[in-house]
This record gives sequence, structure tokens and C-alpha cells, in this order.
Amino acid sequence: MSTHDRLIVDGLQISNWDRPVLQEIQAGGVTGVNATCAVWEGPGDTLRNIGRWYELARQNTDVVTLARSAKDISAAGETGRVAVLLGFQNTSSFGDDYTMVEVFHNLGVRVAQLTYNIQNLVGGACYDPDDSGLTRFGRNILAEMNRVGMLVDLSHVGNRTSRDAIDLSAQPLAITHSNPVWFFDSPRNKPNDVIEALVARGGVIGCCLYPNVIGGEHVTRESFCAMVAELIEQIGVDHVAIGSDCARGWDDEFVGWLRNGRWQPKGTQAATWPAWPAWFSGPAQFPALAEGLCDAGLADKAIDAVMGGNWMRLFEQVFAGTETA
Amino acid sequence: MSTHDRLIVDGLQISNWDRPVLQEIQAGGVTGVNATCAVWEGPGDTLRNIGRWYELARQNTDVVTLARSAKDISAAGETGRVAVLLGFQNTSSFGDDYTMVEVFHNLGVRVAQLTYNIQNLVGGACYDPDDSGLTRFGRNILAEMNRVGMLVDLSHVGNRTSRDAIDLSAQPLAITHSNPVWFFDSPRNKPNDVIEALVARGGVIGCCLYPNVIGGEHVTRESFCAMVAELIEQIGVDHVAIGSDCARGWDDEFVGWLRNGRWQPKGTQAATWPAWPAWFSGPAQFPALAEGLCDAGLADKAIDAVMGGNWMRLFEQVFAGTETA
Repeated sequence: MSTHDRLIVDGLQISNWDRPVLQEIQAGGVTGVNATCAVWEGPGDTLRNIGRWYELARQNTDVVTLARSAKDISAAGETGRVAVLLGFQNTSSFGDDYTMVEVFHNLGVRVAQLTYNIQNLVGGACYDPDDSGLTRFGRNILAEMNRVGMLVDLSHVGNRTSRDAIDLSAQPLAITHSNPVWFFDSPRNKPNDVIEALVARGGVIGCCLYPNVIGGEHVTRESFCAMVAELIEQIGVDHVAIGSDCARGWDDEFVGWLRNGRWQPKGTQAATWPAWPAWFSGPAQFPALAEGLCDAGLADKAIDAVMGGNWMRLFEQVFAGTETA
Repeated sequence: MSTHDRLIVDGLQISNWDRPVLQEIQAGGVTGVNATCAVWEGPGDTLRNIGRWYELARQNTDVVTLARSAKDISAAGETGRVAVLLGFQNTSSFGDDYTMVEVFHNLGVRVAQLTYNIQNLVGGACYDPDDSGLTRFGRNILAEMNRVGMLVDLSHVGNRTSRDAIDLSAQPLAITHSNPVWFFDSPRNKPNDVIEALVARGGVIGCCLYPNVIGGEHVTRESFCAMVAELIEQIGVDHVAIGSDCARGWDDEFVGWLRNGRWQPKGTQAATWPAWPAWFSGPAQFPALAEGLCDAGLADKAIDAVMGGNWMRLFEQVFAGTETA
């Protein structure tokens, strides 16, 4: 099996972005990645993160380019560079102002998750016991994301809010980095009804390699790839992709920030990074993952779709927006 | 004299932007305007102002379009709409972070004044008694503005800082809305050495109609237009333009905000809007201004240059940026 011509796109990474991290992605033959640039940040702090991204990209033009379209990703592939889509794992960056969607879209942000772990102005999240569904403000955010062409991500979102968003969206949506609960039972993974509604709406789910959503470091490549194959059987080859959730270059303080944010005292939820499986400890191992999919019986064309083709199709469709100028 | 084919561009307006204000500009046959969207705001509040601008533009597409280039302005002219360049009258929107220049450039901001009335992180201002010159941070802001293609405005800037900026700039600069001190002596107007350095660097000065920088409401159209003609004699027809400083739709509270900001207690500087001359009380009177220039002896070609052509040439040159990608 050759990986040379395969365009690999990763549905989500949340690394501590610098040149070595980007080179690791490049070494894995990964061309496109949805790179998280905000989790708990409000508008002002998000601006700073984006400013730093511009600087990083400008200082490493041989390795990385900031992409705003599927076409930009294809172009980066031709020069062997990593195309980064700026993405949010929360809508905190929009504050309470729906016009911020267009503002951040203009800055290059192309993906935003509606909630991150806890309820916010937009809706309910995966770790909260009750989910009120998509709020009135959330509907405006959703409509605005549809209009300007920003992909809605449901990975850390509550199930009821996810269903609401799918029902109301004028565009297909994504679960960029989660697995089915039938593979591993976790609030971060998705029940069949959410996955099937997503698929009926034309969406894509990125199977996730984060240890806590696969069942730990000892889960085998065979097991993970068999899950991908089974999911393809369930929902069709056009709707399954990969979202690694790689988090390279961070210390434990950062995972504490992810868990506790500013919504509970630092250290409330003790946090250390989990150990990753030896067969996928970082983005350099994407080719080995493709081999695993081959071993699981997937045809080359199916592997192309899962490793990048499905994200590219979804990006092309969603990033066009619904507004006819 | 026909104004039908003349592209009119206004170097600066700071109105309370809404549909009637835009229609007034349209009624004056004005195609391009540098519209102030931040004066004392930091990054976060500036984002909100820009978000509101996007909304206003989207809701009034028959009257206005947000322009990012001279070409966009020409295109707006063909459909009789007002092309707005978003502009800052301060560098407060960049906070202490030079990467914000590219961030706001990506949002459509094309003009930024280095200081507004008082010294800031970037340099000295026109109303402060001492001017330390362009700071080290100011040099980075200047270089970044040159690189991305954002016009440097010196109107409210101190004279020493202005000279420094002119000396160090890789691009021509502008004084978007000031007059020569020889016409009316005010800290807001410019001495010959600053004007001549600006011109030597290829820049443009927009003669300003704000009552406080012309000598009040009783100054005649003849007197103002004679000043324009004399300035053309002094520095050449390619370097003189108009920056009306129109401030439509505001109450006195806003002029208090302009004067006092948050840097001194509200009301420290009592503020009311000055009365405008009857011959130029708003942007609808641009055609009458052109007639005044004709009466002052300017040829049609010279009037074209002053009323818009010079801004267009400068915009085209500066907005291209200095970075070769």
C-alpha cells in the first residue's frame, strides 16, 4: 500500500504549536489539520492566539500555511506543507455577540465546537448531567456559522444540543474527534441516534485516538481499526474520518487548564496527560494507522476517504457558506 | 463643471454610522471613505465595533460595501454605492501586541493613526507638550503596517513622532485630516517641515473641514479653497486631498468621549460639537466644495486629484504591502 498520493487530513489536534510539532505532522504525511486555537478564551485572548499563529506561520513558511479552504489544503499538499485550519473547541471566543462569528471567520477560523465540556450560552455539553438543548443565542450562532461557512463541531457537545443543532443546521456538521459509545462508553463518545442524525444531514465523524475515548493505551491498533471498519458498515464510507486529538508538546498544567478552565478552582479536577498507545503516540504515525485500516480489510479507496477525502468534501461544501452574495 | 464622472474619496469621517448617514454620503456623490471604527477602544471593544459594521453593511448592501482595496472603491463607484474602508484613529486597538496589526488588517482595517491626542505606546501626540518620538514598539507597529499594507495616518500625531515615522516608513504615509498651520494655527494642524517630509516620502495630506481646524464656522468657502490652491502651489497637485472629518449623527456625549476618553475624568474637558460652515455642513455638500475649488482656479484634472484621485493612488500603492509572499 502506498501512502504517497494520499491526502491525509486530521479532524482535530490541540498541540502546543511550534516548529517541531508542525514538523512531526509533516513527517506523518499529514497535509490538513484543524488546529485548536481557543478552548476557554474569550474574544480578546483568542485574538492573541491568532496573532501568534500568524507569526508562527510567517516564520515557518517552509513547513506550514494557514488555510481558509479545501483548495488551500490541496495546494499545501503539492508543496509538502501542513495546511492549518484555525479552529475553536468552544464558542467562548464569540462572547455574547453573534457578529463575532463573521469577525473570526475573516481571521481564518473555519471550525468551531459549540460547547466544551460544560454548558455555555449556546447549549449543553457532554459532561453536564442535564442538557437544555440549543439556546436562542445558539440558534443565531448556528445560523451565522452556516451563513459565513464555518463548520459546526459537536464533539464535546451534549447529545440533546447536538440533535438540535443537526435538526436546525442548513449545512452538514461534524463530530471532529469522538467514537461511538458502542466502542467505548464515555460521555465524550456518541450514541447511535446522534451519529445517525449527523449522517442523515450529510455530516462526518472523526474517529478519535485520544486514550480516554478509546479505553486507554493498551487498546490495540487492530481493535481501533476494526471499530472504524464496523462504523463504515453502519453509516457508510462517506461519513467516517479521523480526528486524532493529538496534544503534543504540553505539560500537565495545560491538561489542568483544559479540565478546570476558570470555572472551578485550579486543581479541582486533578489532571495528567494519559499515555498513548505505542502504535499511535503522535501524528508521525498516521501512515501506520493507514496500514492498520488496510489490515482491517479496507480497500485503498475507503482508506483515502477515511484518511482525508471525507473531510475535504465536507470542508468544500461547508466553507462555501449559505449566503449568496 | 460636471461631477458625474468624478470619483470622490473622503480621507476621514467619524460619524455615528447608520443608514441615513451613509445615504447622506451617497447623496454627496462620495464613493470612498475612511470610516473611523476605533478611537480609544482596545482590541476587544474594537472587535465589537467591527462586528457591528459587518452587520450594518450586510443590512444595507444597496448603499454601502466594505472595501479592502482601491479596486473595491472603483467597483462601488460603478454601482453608486459608498465604499467604506475601516480605519482607526489610534493604535489602542493593537494593545501591546504587534501581531494585532495583521489581525485587524485581516478584518478589513486599512488605515490607522499612530496616536490620538495623547501619548501612547507608539509615540507622542499633537496635544501633549513633549514628544519623545516614535518608540521601539512604534517602530514595530510601523514596520508591520508597512508589511501588511495598512496606511499610516499622522493627523493627530505629534510632530517629532510624525517625522520619525516618515523617516522610517517603507511606504508613503498620510495626514488624512489636517491643514497647514500657516492657514490656521492649531496643534492639530501641521508645520511645513512635517508636510514637506510627508510629500518627499510620496504621501498625501487631506485638507480638513472640521471647524476647529479651519478657524470656525465663519470661514468662507473661498478662503478654504484658496488654501487648497495655495497648498497645491507649495507641494504639488499630487499630494493634496480632502479629509472632511464629518461627524454626523452624534450627540455631545460622544465629543466628550473623544476629548476625555478614559484618561481623564468625564467632563474634564467640557465638550460640545462646533457649528460647521453653512457651505459645508455635511458630506452631501461635496459637490459644492468641488465647485469652490473650480472657483479658486483649479483645473478639472486638479479637482479630480484633490477630490479622490490622490487618495486612490496612495491606497493602491500602500495597500499592496511590502511583503513579497
